[in-house]
Amino acid sequence: MNEPSDALTARTLVSVTHDGRRDDVAVEEPLEIRVDGAPLAVTMRTPAHDEELALGFLYGEGLIDGPRAAGPTADFAANVVEVSGPLLRDADSRRFYATSSCGVCGKGALEELGTIAPPVGPGPRISRALLADLPSRLRQPTFERTGGLHATALFDVHGELLLLREDVGRHNAMDKVIGRALLDGMLPLAEQVLCVSGRLSFELVQKAAMAGAPILVGVGAPSSLAIELAGDRGMTLAGFARGGSVNVYTAAQRVRDG
Amino acid sequence: MNEPSDALTARTLVSVTHDGRRDDVAVEEPLEIRVDGAPLAVTMRTPAHDEELALGFLYGEGLIDGPRAAGPTADFAANVVEVSGPLLRDADSRRFYATSSCGVCGKGALEELGTIAPPVGPGPRISRALLADLPSRLRQPTFERTGGLHATALFDVHGELLLLREDVGRHNAMDKVIGRALLDGMLPLAEQVLCVSGRLSFELVQKAAMAGAPILVGVGAPSSLAIELAGDRGMTLAGFARGGSVNVYTAAQRVRDG
Repeated sequence: MNEPSDALTARTLVSVTHDGRRDDVAVEEPLEIRVDGAPLAVTMRTPAHDEELALGFLYGEGLIDGPRAAGPTADFAANVVEVSGPLLRDADSRRFYATSSCGVCGKGALEELGTIAPPVGPGPRISRALLADLPSRLRQPTFERTGGLHATALFDVHGELLLLREDVGRHNAMDKVIGRALLDGMLPLAEQVLCVSGRLSFELVQKAAMAGAPILVGVGAPSSLAIELAGDRGMTLAGFARGGSVNVYTAAQRVRDG
Repeated sequence: MNEPSDALTARTLVSVTHDGRRDDVAVEEPLEIRVDGAPLAVTMRTPAHDEELALGFLYGEGLIDGPRAAGPTADFAANVVEVSGPLLRDADSRRFYATSSCGVCGKGALEELGTIAPPVGPGPRISRALLADLPSRLRQPTFERTGGLHATALFDVHGELLLLREDVGRHNAMDKVIGRALLDGMLPLAEQVLCVSGRLSFELVQKAAMAGAPILVGVGAPSSLAIELAGDRGMTLAGFARGGSVNVYTAAQRVRDG
């Protein structure tokens, strides 16, 4: 389940020359997500775990509620992943254009931005010290070589790393984790903690809420709308988790001192 | 032209309570871009400079090539900016869903990801030391209070700050700078340097190329596709500009030692 990113460097890293020396950079390529042959979305992503990315994206958008067959097209078209339908609702009415760090695409109008994520369950409690420490456990093998990748990780409440995915797009990394969790029958993530390497946007909270995650912690700052949505869904949103400290913005009852 | 971000904190910052204290966070809200009354795109952005954002986005997508009237709708609908057409080509055929950090949305198919940006001009030369130092001159008044905003800045070749915009979405910050430059008759940016606070993605290079920027420098890492596109367009792409050092990935002839 927790496939090490090291094994994937051939697809996720490429060597370039600059200033007279060789260096690794993170690969960024478009991925088209097709459902039953019809193009649904294009995202700029780091190759690897494309099926997870596609399924996690669809799950986060409320278009599927269980695993689907996903893989290369019959003609093995490059950078295309094919998912078997049907979808839960008509996607033609709101075309999706996923992007390297966004999940809000395709709503088409402000009133459609309202999320369909249900409130999260009661969830576990976690110590403040452990919550603050989680990002430091977010090993990023590829990031360390390129500085160019975002990561999302899934931890259990004891701080054990269950799953880690990296991508040039932070929303893609989250989609990959949720897609893997979906394939492994782990959704909703009622007792786990999601951890991201960057800032906490509305879309990340929305995806986490769709996955039923009771606790989302990030290294960076939350936005106003991220806090608003987390509060509305009863999710514990924590930011600036670094140097042994963490800010808890919503649903602090899940965080105990010590 | 260079409106200080400090004057905008009422719209860009909001005070929240966490852990028993008050703190500022960056505002994130959706913005719908309409052209002649028809919804074209929705982006998650930090309010302020919405007209610049809309015009910069349209310019970066090749939908306009000069200033357009832009402003609130007749009924002053919240979070909507109205732009006067016509567009250079039919946007119905490729619906756009802008996002907080992406400009590739709406292409709909991989083959459409090819950019329409022309090669950039010869441009200026800049010293390596100055190039490495530019991000430290990228003052971010709001960021310093929230840690939650990306910035894009425009410098002249002597390191003078001409323009600075912040946003929760890094592509929005770039769109705002390009939109402002468009309104001020500064495009193409043949003699200036664009500087971003984060990583260098394909979309950022595409937007910079559309604006004719010969040099793009960032604090963070470039992706493989960002390097590829910059090389193809003859743009100087520089990353990891920090601590007096900088990596120059493409078109290094514009960077002189010293």
